[in-house]
Amino acid sequence: VSAGPPPPLRWWGWGDREVAVPPGLVGLLRDELGADMAGAANAPCRLEDVQVFEPALPPLLRSNLVAAVGGFHVRDDLEERVRHAAGRSYLDLLQLRSGIMTAAPDAVVHPATSAEVLATLRLCSDAGCAVVPFGGGTSVVGGVAPLRRDAETALVALDVDRIDALRDVDTVSRTATLGAGMRGPYIEASLGARGMTLGHFPQSFEYATAGGFAATRSAGQASSGYGRFDELVSGLRLQSPAGELTVDALPPHAAGPSLLQTVIGSEGILGVISEVTVRVRPRPAMLHYAAWSLPDYASGVQLMRDLAQAPLTPDVTRLADPTETRVSLAMAQGRLAALGRRYLTVRGHRRPCVAIFGWEGDGDSVGARVRGASRFFRSAGAVALGAAPAKAWMRDRFHGPYLRDALLDRRLLVETLETSTLWSRLETVRDTVLAALHATLSEAGTPPLIGSHVSHVYADGASLYFTVLARQVEGSEREQWIEAKRTATDAILAAGGAISHHHGVGTDHTPWLRAAVSDRGLSALAALKRDFDPAAVMNPGKLLD
Amino acid sequence: VSAGPPPPLRWWGWGDREVAVPPGLVGLLRDELGADMAGAANAPCRLEDVQVFEPALPPLLRSNLVAAVGGFHVRDDLEERVRHAAGRSYLDLLQLRSGIMTAAPDAVVHPATSAEVLATLRLCSDAGCAVVPFGGGTSVVGGVAPLRRDAETALVALDVDRIDALRDVDTVSRTATLGAGMRGPYIEASLGARGMTLGHFPQSFEYATAGGFAATRSAGQASSGYGRFDELVSGLRLQSPAGELTVDALPPHAAGPSLLQTVIGSEGILGVISEVTVRVRPRPAMLHYAAWSLPDYASGVQLMRDLAQAPLTPDVTRLADPTETRVSLAMAQGRLAALGRRYLTVRGHRRPCVAIFGWEGDGDSVGARVRGASRFFRSAGAVALGAAPAKAWMRDRFHGPYLRDALLDRRLLVETLETSTLWSRLETVRDTVLAALHATLSEAGTPPLIGSHVSHVYADGASLYFTVLARQVEGSEREQWIEAKRTATDAILAAGGAISHHHGVGTDHTPWLRAAVSDRGLSALAALKRDFDPAAVMNPGKLLD
Repeated sequence: VSAGPPPPLRWWGWGDREVAVPPGLVGLLRDELGADMAGAANAPCRLEDVQVFEPALPPLLRSNLVAAVGGFHVRDDLEERVRHAAGRSYLDLLQLRSGIMTAAPDAVVHPATSAEVLATLRLCSDAGCAVVPFGGGTSVVGGVAPLRRDAETALVALDVDRIDALRDVDTVSRTATLGAGMRGPYIEASLGARGMTLGHFPQSFEYATAGGFAATRSAGQASSGYGRFDELVSGLRLQSPAGELTVDALPPHAAGPSLLQTVIGSEGILGVISEVTVRVRPRPAMLHYAAWSLPDYASGVQLMRDLAQAPLTPDVTRLADPTETRVSLAMAQGRLAALGRRYLTVRGHRRPCVAIFGWEGDGDSVGARVRGASRFFRSAGAVALGAAPAKAWMRDRFHGPYLRDALLDRRLLVETLETSTLWSRLETVRDTVLAALHATLSEAGTPPLIGSHVSHVYADGASLYFTVLARQVEGSEREQWIEAKRTATDAILAAGGAISHHHGVGTDHTPWLRAAVSDRGLSALAALKRDFDPAAVMNPGKLLD
Repeated sequence: VSAGPPPPLRWWGWGDREVAVPPGLVGLLRDELGADMAGAANAPCRLEDVQVFEPALPPLLRSNLVAAVGGFHVRDDLEERVRHAAGRSYLDLLQLRSGIMTAAPDAVVHPATSAEVLATLRLCSDAGCAVVPFGGGTSVVGGVAPLRRDAETALVALDVDRIDALRDVDTVSRTATLGAGMRGPYIEASLGARGMTLGHFPQSFEYATAGGFAATRSAGQASSGYGRFDELVSGLRLQSPAGELTVDALPPHAAGPSLLQTVIGSEGILGVISEVTVRVRPRPAMLHYAAWSLPDYASGVQLMRDLAQAPLTPDVTRLADPTETRVSLAMAQGRLAALGRRYLTVRGHRRPCVAIFGWEGDGDSVGARVRGASRFFRSAGAVALGAAPAKAWMRDRFHGPYLRDALLDRRLLVETLETSTLWSRLETVRDTVLAALHATLSEAGTPPLIGSHVSHVYADGASLYFTVLARQVEGSEREQWIEAKRTATDAILAAGGAISHHHGVGTDHTPWLRAAVSDRGLSALAALKRDFDPAAVMNPGKLLD
């Protein structure tokens, strides 16, 4: 974990640097998908060529916002607007690269305090100006899309980046209050200076913020050990057009319905989370990460379930299916990977599934938990692969989105989707989703390569995560993915999966929320929204139509 | 755990049998409180003398309800009405014993299915008739009080006792669906026949129901191990005047705000929970319960915190303060208790605090966890007391409410209250509450004896539970307790405790909910209620004014 906030995202992609497609993956994509891995790169549009409409914030609102947060913190230069015009889904990246960003916010407001957030929301609500809360901008489901009800409506992005103080560290109760704009590395560095960790490491860790983690019901890669973000939060402050909601930071209690769990996952439609109080822990003295190969997918799933139900769940728990394993081995090309493949063939793992497990804590407890888990490894027929593959995974754990940009340069469709479901349905959900994606993309003339993994395991079920690779259908790249995503989401709901385990709803899943929570559930959410946001200015088009 | 549902509660108290006040407690109450433990018992009113108004259900509503659920299941005989006229708080017991039950429901409706519940609610909503959802009737915070907006309003209790089927046992995912009316022993017997347990054992276990557990955000005595009820529930069906809300039973996911956690703790103001799907486990092969003495309260609290933060929390975790320990030792009068007292004095525990810990599971995991915890026992200066006191606690774990009736016969005030708070505030909260109760009750001329215990421990804090004993102020018994409770609750909120850890809000805590969740939080709850219950017939006066 690095010591400070990383440089900003490239405006059209991820991270601050180019990465190369590993040679093994180049070969695989060329051979299996017929991808052109050698031709001219399909480069993104240049910033100065991006098309946006003229900013059209009503002058009175603009001057009021300037009075509230200071002139320097109401910005409408091109780069600022483009940087707040999209998240980081595949569709967002297509849009950004195309340079047609006409829906970009009219301005970006950067309040410095909870009170300034509240003032901003009141001014926008009074003026009927839409507000998109903005943290890291890493949503992969359209969560920060600048959607207007009609072309005449003004829209601002409200960026919480200046609300970044660590407050109220309670070392006895192990809680701390995070400003909404604190990014993952800064959270860890700030807590680390006190010997503590939050332990929240989603793939978006480097750029995503504390407020965004709460607003989207985020779950990190070590959530089996440290808890999902909805479990880590004990209190928060939400600023809404109707005023501030404070949920006092307390241990679990029984004062009626959980307002905390009503705000967590509200994705900006009720207001802006300005602070969260979280449960923290001492930094672990020991990290023990290792990989195993399972003889087949069913044994792997059984092992994951056995560990979750024992319960002896490692803090990081992740099982790649045969395809994801094959892609990983291709990417890890080299002497060790080749040796590994040969060794597994000898041991009878012809379609191996690689599992990564990580234990963190003090030496005693890590040792006891590893010993406890080992009998399940034996009975599953697991073959130990040692620490090297697990270390490689740790090194590359935030790497996927960097690689994605390089694949988009090669005109590849590359996107992920995920769900959670009961153990009794897990293999059916996987089969159904794979079948739907293969059918739809093959019909489009672009048969895909789809790997999946099981992670975030619970006693009753687990998360299932899919990575889809295919050639783009040139000229209808958006439609190609929209159709594939539609059939995959239909398949998830039909087979009994959740609409999302940790990506959230955003705009992409909104059409399915009604099926997931029924008319009655949507009505309840709409009633809440009316109460917090009577003028319906908060993050239009997310969660609710 | 017994095999079937217990006989009904005595209409005026708890259980189906008399219990005697243990001689040691008799002496202590006589000596320390000046209680008259030998005079004539203050017996409750006879059922035939109870005063109720004539039932006044509008005839059309009555015939519609009969058509919906069957004539036999719309009852308005005296006993049925009185049995649904109060919960089991101290104030409820005073009321029941007095025989003045004029607010009793006009009728009690017993629907057999979710569809019949929905039909009942729609009929009552259309007729403007208040509905009090009724499970075990064990609320200690006024949760089933038959409150009418005005004297002309009709009111029915909706008893879910006929919705009592176990359905959809999924042994792979370890989930099962419980009818809302299943009582604790019947839940355990039904699951036990499949080798499973829910592990939910609140003190009200024998009478309380699955629906009530969910509606009140219940936590059982083994919640540190098995989870609070809000963690055990993965899905539910809520019937409301505006229709049914189904929350599909799934592992954790990120489909917006948690509708599940909005219904849990809603205490009947949104509708009636007709079914809950819960996470279950195999019945434990081994139970290991034992007691320890701590040299003083601070060491005990430190031990509880160390175990919770290790984390090495036993499944049952409970630390009595010096007064509660003294009362327990008095009640346990006998050779063993006397030996124990002498032994602890020798070991320097002059104001000992007894802790009960219980571990459940397979032999390996219990052994490992007990070994892990033992170093914390040593560093806290704990003295092992063996299994006997823990076994006695297990035997008597549901016994408190039986004893309370016998103490009321002796004109004693006996009531409990509880909160949860952060570790950094725990001793301050305890001191503040004790001071408030001592001051108020001493001022009333009835200095109290107050024991407390820490239980339900978390990494960030714990629950604090108080048991108050005092002589009654004859002629103003209600006012005596209302005033004491008011000052105690003010003290809890002022010192930074939760309004309740697991008793809920009901009517008793409603005046404090505004302070706890702020105007904005109350407004959000009211908005939800309007959406589910537009005619405001559901459980009036609970949670919201």
